[in-house]
Amino acid sequence: MALLSPSHRLRRTPFSEGVEAAGVKAYTVYNHMLLPTVFRSPEEDYRHLKEAVQVWDVSCERQVELRGPDSGRLMQMLTPRDLRGMTVGQCYYVPIVDETGGMLNDPVAVKLAEDRWWISIADSDLLYWVKAIAHGWRLDVLVDEPDVSPLGVQGPKADDLMARVFGDGVRDVRFFRYGIFDFQGRDMVIARSGYSKQGGFEIYVEGGDIGMPLWNALFEAGKDLDVHAGCPNLIERIEGGLLSYGNDMNSNNTPHECGLGKFCNTHTAIGCVGRDALLRVAKEGPVQKICPVEIDGPRVPVCDRWWPVTVDGTRIGRISSAAWSPDFDTNVAIGMIRMTHWDAGTEFDVDTPDGTRRARVRSGFWS
Amino acid sequence: MALLSPSHRLRRTPFSEGVEAAGVKAYTVYNHMLLPTVFRSPEEDYRHLKEAVQVWDVSCERQVELRGPDSGRLMQMLTPRDLRGMTVGQCYYVPIVDETGGMLNDPVAVKLAEDRWWISIADSDLLYWVKAIAHGWRLDVLVDEPDVSPLGVQGPKADDLMARVFGDGVRDVRFFRYGIFDFQGRDMVIARSGYSKQGGFEIYVEGGDIGMPLWNALFEAGKDLDVHAGCPNLIERIEGGLLSYGNDMNSNNTPHECGLGKFCNTHTAIGCVGRDALLRVAKEGPVQKICPVEIDGPRVPVCDRWWPVTVDGTRIGRISSAAWSPDFDTNVAIGMIRMTHWDAGTEFDVDTPDGTRRARVRSGFWS
Repeated sequence: MALLSPSHRLRRTPFSEGVEAAGVKAYTVYNHMLLPTVFRSPEEDYRHLKEAVQVWDVSCERQVELRGPDSGRLMQMLTPRDLRGMTVGQCYYVPIVDETGGMLNDPVAVKLAEDRWWISIADSDLLYWVKAIAHGWRLDVLVDEPDVSPLGVQGPKADDLMARVFGDGVRDVRFFRYGIFDFQGRDMVIARSGYSKQGGFEIYVEGGDIGMPLWNALFEAGKDLDVHAGCPNLIERIEGGLLSYGNDMNSNNTPHECGLGKFCNTHTAIGCVGRDALLRVAKEGPVQKICPVEIDGPRVPVCDRWWPVTVDGTRIGRISSAAWSPDFDTNVAIGMIRMTHWDAGTEFDVDTPDGTRRARVRSGFWS
Repeated sequence: MALLSPSHRLRRTPFSEGVEAAGVKAYTVYNHMLLPTVFRSPEEDYRHLKEAVQVWDVSCERQVELRGPDSGRLMQMLTPRDLRGMTVGQCYYVPIVDETGGMLNDPVAVKLAEDRWWISIADSDLLYWVKAIAHGWRLDVLVDEPDVSPLGVQGPKADDLMARVFGDGVRDVRFFRYGIFDFQGRDMVIARSGYSKQGGFEIYVEGGDIGMPLWNALFEAGKDLDVHAGCPNLIERIEGGLLSYGNDMNSNNTPHECGLGKFCNTHTAIGCVGRDALLRVAKEGPVQKICPVEIDGPRVPVCDRWWPVTVDGTRIGRISSAAWSPDFDTNVAIGMIRMTHWDAGTEFDVDTPDGTRRARVRSGFWS
């Protein structure tokens, strides 16, 4: 792995001190911010995530806050998902598209009030898009990035750990819902969500000053639960089919290509930017889509660029994420595959830096 | 230094193969792309940049392309700098601001034709802002990111090296102008510009496939000029007062605070977003501004977070970039200092991770 030169431009987080003390081994950069990628080893972190509980510094999931009378209208302009049924207390996974239906981000929207929303973003400056849409359409809304840094608590023992710090009420929070809980006199939005399939929560920590006190309280309370610092795990997220914006898709892709057609209510999401283009896609269907792909042979190398997927030398797709899975004893991968070859069981070649491998489409992700 | 986990999301460039072969030691991430930061050592790279010629992979200076009848109007909406006198063949450094006058980016605009522009961006997804402004104002313009990757050729021997590859005509390109030159049958926009004070060019390489042939041609032609792979150098850019968006300023700062008031023609740049707010700032003047700061004592540590600047314990600013300068035998730094203390010669304390240092405002940058 290469070295990363530190600078203020790659922002530290309210939890960086804790992350460093926990022995972080590597980072990535996400929304101009440091995101840990390894603590012990990818495999050890993976095993521990599936068995215990981890605290994740996911401050890089920055928030775009909408406030004011037009915030609901603006939110609906941003996504083809119909938000009319969404109530305060809910979180929605929402594709955000440009005027051609190309994906700009795949965040989680948090409805705080009828006139107040947070958009918890993936890796792109969605703030710029939202501010300019509000400006261009003369909407009566304030848009900015608040001092809110999400802290993930993920793993099968997440409920136990969270209950010790926030009380048993936190156990009742349902999936993709949130509640407001107290920590040292401060209100915290806590949602049952997170970028793993192992269960858990995301705490929207408002005010960087309370970051380390909360971090320390979680580690203090979780000693006997084997709590450890963790981070989104490449192996686990591929097994679970969790997409990564910038890796698995970008602004060239429609939500339908990404398997997110179910979140596109193009007939009812009135006013959404990109609706016309997506109506067309919905009618004709995409010509390629994201598929789970199993790659034969020993452990694949690091997938730091798209690997061509070919049949008899003709390119029919790409692999965008791949890793060796200890639990499934195979290489798990995410690919964008053309419709001619996307049926489960279809075999093809993948050109990795280590040579060509045989691979096939699976009927579903692994977990 | 920490390790950087590779992934496709941190994009490689058309020159990555050459960068790796040249022995890159560290990277930063800039516009979701790898930007080399060290080849031999920061000091060796600095010395070599000032004495010879370097080839820089600055592909991360992505382009936002505007095409179509409203592209000139849109370009003027984006910046408070009056573009009416700008002709085809010119490059302008243009602050880009939001509706409150906060800086969103500080790119170089390249006027390719009356109806075609490139904006060569600093580290933020300006594409999102530009696309949404065009959408919200229903402008007749196409906005996208073309396959263009700038390659810098910087240093006192840059003219000699470039002339060997592109012919002597390249010597006649004036500062912040560009010409079109042939390489292997392909037209290349070549501007006399770059992120150093040592002179040189930026080649806007259109089409990633021609990247490595050009890279190799430059190294082949420059053997006796001691050509080496290089990159923006922290020490040299601070000495020269070249600002770094995200380090030295962000969207909280107006151009006036960044010393860019001279690029704000708020009385004549009609239609510019943020004009009202900037007219106010222009009238009253900023309350803080970017200053060259000399920090006493031995070599300062790495400035990976803002260092508070204080007088008698009261905060009056921050240091955002700092490094030891071998040539000026002092620590050179860039700070944002309040008006009460921005006069040249004013002394104050800087809280570095290694302890408090005495420091003072200089009358100008070092070179």
